[in-house]
Amino acid sequence: MALELSQLLDPESVAIIGVSENPSRIGGRLFKYLTKHGYKGHLALVNPKYQELNGVACYPSVSDIPVQIDCALIAVAEKYVLSVLSECADSHVGSAVIFSSGFAEMGRSGKEAQNKIKELAKTKNLRVCGPNCIGLINFNSHTALSFSQLLEIDTLIPGNIGFISQSGALGGSLVNRAQDKNIGLSYFISSGNEADLEVSDYIKYLVLHDQNTKVIAAVIEGFKDGAKFIEAAELALTHQKPLIVLKIGETEVGQKAAASHTGSMTGSDAVIDAVFRQKGVIRVHNYDELFQTASLFSKGRIPQGGKVGILTSTGGGGIIMADYYTKLGLAVPEPSLETQDLASKEIAAFGKVANPFDLTGQIFSDPDMFKRCMKLFVEDDNFDIVQVNVSMVAGESSAQRASMLLESIGESTKPIVSWWAAGSLSEPGIQLLNGSEVALFRSPERCAAAVKSLVEYYQFLEKYSDPAPSGTDTDYSISAQKAGELVATGDKSLSEHQSKALLDLYGIPVTREQVAKSPQEAIRLAGEIGFPVVLKIDSPDILHKSDAGAIRLGVNSQEEIIRFYDEIIANAETYNPDARINGVLVQEMIREGTEVMIGMSQDPQFGPTIAFGLGGIFVEVLKDISLRVAPLSISDAEQMVKEIKGYQILQGVRGRKPSDVEAIVDVLLRISRLAQDCKDIITEIDVNPLIVFDEGCGVKAADALVVLKTHRRGKAYAD
Amino acid sequence: MALELSQLLDPESVAIIGVSENPSRIGGRLFKYLTKHGYKGHLALVNPKYQELNGVACYPSVSDIPVQIDCALIAVAEKYVLSVLSECADSHVGSAVIFSSGFAEMGRSGKEAQNKIKELAKTKNLRVCGPNCIGLINFNSHTALSFSQLLEIDTLIPGNIGFISQSGALGGSLVNRAQDKNIGLSYFISSGNEADLEVSDYIKYLVLHDQNTKVIAAVIEGFKDGAKFIEAAELALTHQKPLIVLKIGETEVGQKAAASHTGSMTGSDAVIDAVFRQKGVIRVHNYDELFQTASLFSKGRIPQGGKVGILTSTGGGGIIMADYYTKLGLAVPEPSLETQDLASKEIAAFGKVANPFDLTGQIFSDPDMFKRCMKLFVEDDNFDIVQVNVSMVAGESSAQRASMLLESIGESTKPIVSWWAAGSLSEPGIQLLNGSEVALFRSPERCAAAVKSLVEYYQFLEKYSDPAPSGTDTDYSISAQKAGELVATGDKSLSEHQSKALLDLYGIPVTREQVAKSPQEAIRLAGEIGFPVVLKIDSPDILHKSDAGAIRLGVNSQEEIIRFYDEIIANAETYNPDARINGVLVQEMIREGTEVMIGMSQDPQFGPTIAFGLGGIFVEVLKDISLRVAPLSISDAEQMVKEIKGYQILQGVRGRKPSDVEAIVDVLLRISRLAQDCKDIITEIDVNPLIVFDEGCGVKAADALVVLKTHRRGKAYAD
Repeated sequence: MALELSQLLDPESVAIIGVSENPSRIGGRLFKYLTKHGYKGHLALVNPKYQELNGVACYPSVSDIPVQIDCALIAVAEKYVLSVLSECADSHVGSAVIFSSGFAEMGRSGKEAQNKIKELAKTKNLRVCGPNCIGLINFNSHTALSFSQLLEIDTLIPGNIGFISQSGALGGSLVNRAQDKNIGLSYFISSGNEADLEVSDYIKYLVLHDQNTKVIAAVIEGFKDGAKFIEAAELALTHQKPLIVLKIGETEVGQKAAASHTGSMTGSDAVIDAVFRQKGVIRVHNYDELFQTASLFSKGRIPQGGKVGILTSTGGGGIIMADYYTKLGLAVPEPSLETQDLASKEIAAFGKVANPFDLTGQIFSDPDMFKRCMKLFVEDDNFDIVQVNVSMVAGESSAQRASMLLESIGESTKPIVSWWAAGSLSEPGIQLLNGSEVALFRSPERCAAAVKSLVEYYQFLEKYSDPAPSGTDTDYSISAQKAGELVATGDKSLSEHQSKALLDLYGIPVTREQVAKSPQEAIRLAGEIGFPVVLKIDSPDILHKSDAGAIRLGVNSQEEIIRFYDEIIANAETYNPDARINGVLVQEMIREGTEVMIGMSQDPQFGPTIAFGLGGIFVEVLKDISLRVAPLSISDAEQMVKEIKGYQILQGVRGRKPSDVEAIVDVLLRISRLAQDCKDIITEIDVNPLIVFDEGCGVKAADALVVLKTHRRGKAYAD
Repeated sequence: MALELSQLLDPESVAIIGVSENPSRIGGRLFKYLTKHGYKGHLALVNPKYQELNGVACYPSVSDIPVQIDCALIAVAEKYVLSVLSECADSHVGSAVIFSSGFAEMGRSGKEAQNKIKELAKTKNLRVCGPNCIGLINFNSHTALSFSQLLEIDTLIPGNIGFISQSGALGGSLVNRAQDKNIGLSYFISSGNEADLEVSDYIKYLVLHDQNTKVIAAVIEGFKDGAKFIEAAELALTHQKPLIVLKIGETEVGQKAAASHTGSMTGSDAVIDAVFRQKGVIRVHNYDELFQTASLFSKGRIPQGGKVGILTSTGGGGIIMADYYTKLGLAVPEPSLETQDLASKEIAAFGKVANPFDLTGQIFSDPDMFKRCMKLFVEDDNFDIVQVNVSMVAGESSAQRASMLLESIGESTKPIVSWWAAGSLSEPGIQLLNGSEVALFRSPERCAAAVKSLVEYYQFLEKYSDPAPSGTDTDYSISAQKAGELVATGDKSLSEHQSKALLDLYGIPVTREQVAKSPQEAIRLAGEIGFPVVLKIDSPDILHKSDAGAIRLGVNSQEEIIRFYDEIIANAETYNPDARINGVLVQEMIREGTEVMIGMSQDPQFGPTIAFGLGGIFVEVLKDISLRVAPLSISDAEQMVKEIKGYQILQGVRGRKPSDVEAIVDVLLRISRLAQDCKDIITEIDVNPLIVFDEGCGVKAADALVVLKTHRRGKAYAD
């Protein structure tokens, strides 16, 4: 697909279909902007009204253009779009940008029209950007294929950040802000309704085929194809082109708005967040943070760790930054003894040199002192990143400070970030830093957040590994085959005992148990298992055994078994007269350990999704759950266990021993494998509780439920 | 103090002591800026080197000035500060600003010098701002008493926001940013080390004596006097002058930096946060948010509720805002049926009119449509606040949009907020909105946060009431007297039984219990109380009864009592041979209810602080605690119970009945009263657990510990 996309993203010839001499119309604006920003390829115009416009030849139709057209800009009313697109295909045009709106965002009839575009693109091998988009800009080749008022700007600043936005107006606004700060871009692509090309396609192209792009930024409302996005994110990761995403539509209200905006469902935000964590996608939650973070990454300076040294000319600003970094989990350690020693000699009056290091007003009377202290901080091994806060400096003073900062970086390749607290009066200094090696921030919090993302990304890269199943003791090909047979015996869901048999096939420990068909058999089984036991109804049609009154814990004697057996059967029959009853499950009673739960549900976009949490109130009241999509890597599974708030419980608190976390990780990996193998037949797995014993003593599934694809309980952990 | 402060904050005569002809020196800059910004009062200069400077008379010393000086600006080296100040006092100068640094922020010797300033200010009745500050500006009277480079600006914009900052450089920077956005100020006061006047003094003055100030903004690192701040915050609240604070030094690292900055301890951030909640102080956590929030408040438009209507010309921007408001707990409801009907007629092609309402590109072809839709939203009773998002509009288009927005507000007094997404290209429109009735935001998240603060503040004002003790059945004057007697019997702490006797004096229900001196007495008491009982050691010297093995639960028979009685005594004696032992406490055993804990500890700045949380892991692992300082109002106590994460547990989850929340509130109020009465003799109270029964069935303290002032366990809930 690479070649075809270059016809769209770096076209040697462009046709504007529906060109106008009126610059307030889309066709007129496209022509104006394309010319204004110096497009260097061949330009053809199409409109039966004109013979030429400003000296450029204009043809009655696209088929009349004598040269091969790489990219057609379609600026006609929506009712003509399909016929124009079809004509483009017949004339061997390589790609098209459809600006017109009135498609999937307008409901059913628009959706049908959009499907026709999709079909045409596929069958005629014509790559389409849009519809309902504002086009795209290639900053390096000066190709502006957009009608956005953003192009009223005099000069476009090229750079190494590729930017893709599903939302056109928002994307254009962001580009304007970025370029104001001298942040250069390789591309701005507005993907619109994505009838054909999706965000993921553009990401892949920028990763694999665009040398100019070093960092990718994106504004995303939803994904059409989850698997394709995962693939694109993995590519970006392995090529070390950081992918920074502002994913909007986080709440239900926001998702509803997104659905009516570009006609796409955004999907569960929690699952998307899980995918981002798994694939090293840097998620920002703020509009302004997107380009500020991208800009920091684009400097190409890689931190060796998360220790920040702060030089400040404002005491208050030093406190603010120390607060932010600490809250984000980065370290603000003391300077090395050598730095302390040398710096205190430089500026004897200060006494102790600390971090943050407050240069106070002395910086005005002895400006060189700043440079000397900066050198000490940059060269100090206690710091992986150096931050400089600049407060109220006006005019020439600000330019002087910026120059000194730039001079003092020296040979260091450490990331250097700078927060400037004042406003217009510091403009001369700010201008000097914009676009320099120093990443400039105007907001202390965004500065800290960007540094945190930078540190996290490179730490993630280091430990990233491919998904891998656990347990070499299990032959998963046999498991998968037997699982298929087992599942074939059920229709809506499996009974508890069947569900556990399935877990057992994948090497997951379950309670000792058997199904009894009579009280006498139950007594015999209880004798084998050992008292006390648990008695439960075993039926694929009774999912909530407690509600049915069909469960008895701590059954201690033969007499109790005789009494409870009949009660359980009777209660189950009353609860659901149509239920198929396999008998009464006689199960060992576990009285120790910590309850956790592991679940699997199917996400409409990303497929099998694994959930983990502590049992009881942690899941039910506090919603303390971690999520990942299958397949899991070992570090995914480890991270899942560690990132819940209740993790301390598993580490051992209040005098309790630590739990067997390794065994939990093992079960997560096995469930991941099971979920992958059975993704077409199972919609839900609920191992709840899984009992976790002390470190080294393993786990045991005490209850389990498997729901099959024909039937959905409508429950998703991601809610 | 009002009159004295007006000599500082609105002086009719000013002397610059240590004036210089060199504008790069502090004394030179003060002179330059004071003149430049048009000070209208009498100006005198002091420096033996000059006879006059630029036509202004210069005297050898302050005592030589022939007129009465309201305010002396002291710009001399720190070693001369005291003698100059003393001379000022002798010359009946009303107030002084000390710019020099080198005081409390420099350690012990600096602290001593600062204490002398404090003493002098007090004895000679001379109000002092600073030291280690950058001065102050009265914007309405054009009095610029500062050397901040901020004053390089051509014009100062007066307004209704009074701004106080402990950090000078940061404060100056913030003023520059605010004025860039045409946000007008009444005052900028840099309070520095606060040898004499504190932030709280300035707040009180602005609330009571400055007509121009409608809103107060502050940057605070720490409080010298907690009670004075509470008083100032209450004044601001009752005078409805919103007080918006950026409190820095939230983390330990930040607090350490603050200690070395202005030489003050910041105190526990959790307690400060509690005070802010109690007194309606609006806390912002971001640098940029301070003035953006203050600016929204300064418009004086009061929302009737928390429902936001969003008009947007960017679909993506609509989603972003809907997300933010939803996450912050505000409502984004559908427009009324009437609005839906009328708006869909206006713009038939859109289909359903929703919220956010996306005006799409149609806004360009039919600009008046924006005004008509705006009118519908402003007049719709479903909305308390109307938000307008503006995306990529350039030049004239942006000015046109801003004008339309201003025209469409009409007679409405609803808050109108607007987020502009683009950058420099939208400058013409942005300029029109700056300083207008519409609150302008450049960041969607800060816009939502400010609106949330506005809504919350006015909701808080409505339900705010004075602290009030609970229980008219209790005569607290008798309680206080008896409490004094009871406490006098202990030295380090009270035994459990004594502690409960104290709670009982304040009408707090405790378990039925008595101390037995022999096994026989214990048997008799158990018979009266009813089996099973709990046996515990009763000793003021054994605080951790479990650790000592001196507690037995569920004691069911006379035989058990005989055995356990001796065991408990023996274990206690082994654990602490010196412990005074009152006997064995025989206590009713409570087997139902939910465990909560209520505590009191002493904050060094704010005094008795009440803590509430659920028992067990909620407090110990999740640190799920709410705090308030005593005295509590009823709504404080209610809020404390509601704001913990585990509140749902008390409301009844998983089939459990709701707990008696009213009874918890009652105990909180009684503990608050007890804490107030005994604040000089008790340092800590720990009621843990307090057992809460079902709704209407009350509570009972099952264990309690009271620590007396002579002894500190070093535990604070605020940690």
